[in-house]
Amino acid sequence: MNESETFDIIVVGAGIIGVATAYHLQQNNPEKRILLLDRYLAAGQANTAMSAAAVRNMFASSTNQLLTDSTIKFIEHVQTELGFELMFEKCGYLWLLSEEQFNSEGVKLWMERMKRSGISHKVYDKHELKDMIPSLVVDFSNSEEAHLMNLKEVSYGLFGADCGVLDATRFVEFYFEEFKKISSVKPRFGVNVEKLILEADPKLDLPGEPFVWQDKRVVGVKTDKGEFRADCVVLATGAWANELLDPIGMDSRTKCKKRQMFVVHASDNEGLKQLLNTKGFNDMEVCPFIILPSAGVYFRPQIQEHGFWVGCGDKLGRAYKYIQTDEELVPESSYYENSMFPVLSAYFPDFASTRPVNSWAGGYCYSPDAIPLVYYENGVLVANGASGSGIMKADAIARIADALYRGMPEAELFGGKKIPSEALSIKKRKVETENVVI
Amino acid sequence: MNESETFDIIVVGAGIIGVATAYHLQQNNPEKRILLLDRYLAAGQANTAMSAAAVRNMFASSTNQLLTDSTIKFIEHVQTELGFELMFEKCGYLWLLSEEQFNSEGVKLWMERMKRSGISHKVYDKHELKDMIPSLVVDFSNSEEAHLMNLKEVSYGLFGADCGVLDATRFVEFYFEEFKKISSVKPRFGVNVEKLILEADPKLDLPGEPFVWQDKRVVGVKTDKGEFRADCVVLATGAWANELLDPIGMDSRTKCKKRQMFVVHASDNEGLKQLLNTKGFNDMEVCPFIILPSAGVYFRPQIQEHGFWVGCGDKLGRAYKYIQTDEELVPESSYYENSMFPVLSAYFPDFASTRPVNSWAGGYCYSPDAIPLVYYENGVLVANGASGSGIMKADAIARIADALYRGMPEAELFGGKKIPSEALSIKKRKVETENVVI
Repeated sequence: MNESETFDIIVVGAGIIGVATAYHLQQNNPEKRILLLDRYLAAGQANTAMSAAAVRNMFASSTNQLLTDSTIKFIEHVQTELGFELMFEKCGYLWLLSEEQFNSEGVKLWMERMKRSGISHKVYDKHELKDMIPSLVVDFSNSEEAHLMNLKEVSYGLFGADCGVLDATRFVEFYFEEFKKISSVKPRFGVNVEKLILEADPKLDLPGEPFVWQDKRVVGVKTDKGEFRADCVVLATGAWANELLDPIGMDSRTKCKKRQMFVVHASDNEGLKQLLNTKGFNDMEVCPFIILPSAGVYFRPQIQEHGFWVGCGDKLGRAYKYIQTDEELVPESSYYENSMFPVLSAYFPDFASTRPVNSWAGGYCYSPDAIPLVYYENGVLVANGASGSGIMKADAIARIADALYRGMPEAELFGGKKIPSEALSIKKRKVETENVVI
Repeated sequence: MNESETFDIIVVGAGIIGVATAYHLQQNNPEKRILLLDRYLAAGQANTAMSAAAVRNMFASSTNQLLTDSTIKFIEHVQTELGFELMFEKCGYLWLLSEEQFNSEGVKLWMERMKRSGISHKVYDKHELKDMIPSLVVDFSNSEEAHLMNLKEVSYGLFGADCGVLDATRFVEFYFEEFKKISSVKPRFGVNVEKLILEADPKLDLPGEPFVWQDKRVVGVKTDKGEFRADCVVLATGAWANELLDPIGMDSRTKCKKRQMFVVHASDNEGLKQLLNTKGFNDMEVCPFIILPSAGVYFRPQIQEHGFWVGCGDKLGRAYKYIQTDEELVPESSYYENSMFPVLSAYFPDFASTRPVNSWAGGYCYSPDAIPLVYYENGVLVANGASGSGIMKADAIARIADALYRGMPEAELFGGKKIPSEALSIKKRKVETENVVI
């Protein structure tokens, strides 16, 4: 068959943003034929599955606060009211901060804005922290290594109780199953979108179209399984967006960086068991998601696995990529050993005697202000640049994308709060730059 | 020799931004040893030589107004007071606008801001334009082709008298010669910078450095002619910046797009001769730089060559590139024939009977807000993203770069106006987005 198939909407990418967007679009446009595509063989198998799968509303920008707070409330709603198990556990987030960090303008502004937005947060001093987490090292005065490594001593902890962890794959599954229930079009997997089809509008059927003097719009996608056409092409492609947008001359503003996650089990390590079972922060009596003061190293509890996922916010020295390459999927054991482990074990010596049992890596899609980009231009509806927090913003991003599709001036987020539909666009962007990124 | 040579500053790129920056740095830091490098065999041979070499102060953002106004005044100073011939001719810029464009919010704001900044501009209606440029078509009512092509009819002209054209190569030569007079280091050409050398600061001499917990900074460049080290590496690499910044994890925010220029001679074409000799706009009695209302097509007079350079502001449909490739250096005759020529000849039918005698192409380096990026981070001083107007901003950009190097809070531009040194940086950026880009 050489002819192209035609739909109303094509959603490219079945990660968390893609499935959430497909679901809300179908929900609010029941008559539209929506095709969901992914290059992998199932939904949520790419970078969504590679993330720390943690959610927090502790952001400094009111935009990110709004996006995450409403998405977390939706997650609770799905798990509690709809009874769909997401393994969402409100373990909380604990930022360990040095004296200097705690007193910095950035952290003051962050706390001020959280207070104004009513986002739960609490400050612990180092003595309180030491009582609750006895294995935490808060005194580096006798550690030559910590001095050599220029590690910052812990003076405070900033704790957010409404944050937590979940199972990202289940969250994808929720949207995907709900979408399938209401969609008349079967999603297709193993389909690689090679390019966006940009055509003159109107077409004059001249050879060489479109010319510079013609209006143009995207009318579909060329894939390795044929051509698909639609009035609207949704790009929920994360770290791959440039590969499709650049050739038609749209600048996504995003770039990609490799991130890695290492799994450390607590079994056979009494110290780590105690750390995992830290009391006082949450009802589950489990340790919160903890961010160290130095080098961007963090870990989250993984209760079912009885262990931790350890990650690191890679900054200067880790290459930006234009688009995600296969290289980003290979974790580096030397990175854990030489970069993360020395930091981790300086603050939590119990990690010293245990090595990772598993690891993975993926592509982290940056936007310049660490706020997602959602816009509808030239027939393409882009939902991108979630900057490492796509899962915790997915529901809000999807509702904004749907509002843009329907031409609504505002999007209503879960819980009833509203946001201008173009607030996250490139042309009418109206956001506060986010300073609290991991 | 395997050892690396050491300097105080290395300037990578001897285009107009590079030579201007090298000159001002050397002027204000006479004791510093500054090495100027370029991959080409002479200064100003890459994208500087490919540009339209036109200068205007008619911008909508106060930032670009300041940068261009002071640079144009410096150009006049060089040519008139220093007696260095730049072939600078104040032919003026003439924007041809449709009724709708003229009354748009964007153009109103632009004119308002020019008025506030004291930038010379004058409005002509279509009857006045028709008197001054008899060959200009201002009535498309009987042109089926113009309707089919959706071309906008000319209703107004917005003219800026303090704009003009110059010889870009001579402007490069001015800075380059002045730099050589005061520099103790001979510039080197045919040197390809392969990567920035990022090192731990302080170095611990551990294998695998730098690690994630170490501070890092750029300490030099690795080239195909050996390693050069310096306290400060200036990147004036335009459309090539990503190739050097991405690998160390710095996001330049810029992207590149191919632009093309076509040379049309007026000899043997009575109509074009008359157009070239248009009276009333300037003392030379030559036609101004003219921008058409549709498709971004423009042309500038080239007096010595007795003809025009015709260009086009490529938008949707022309690919963004990650870095400039060789493909960007090849002009496409079909682009002139099918995209530019139909537009050009609809407004100026005299172009219909003459074809280009020469053409070239280069890489246009975009910044997201069309304001240059100038910042000093991690040992790298980046001067980039001039968005097609590097020549007309070069002197201001170079003075800002020098102020950043010297740690001055403000840069004094030619003519005495000041700008905060970090106004064009990424972290403390304080600019108005530019809406008048070609």
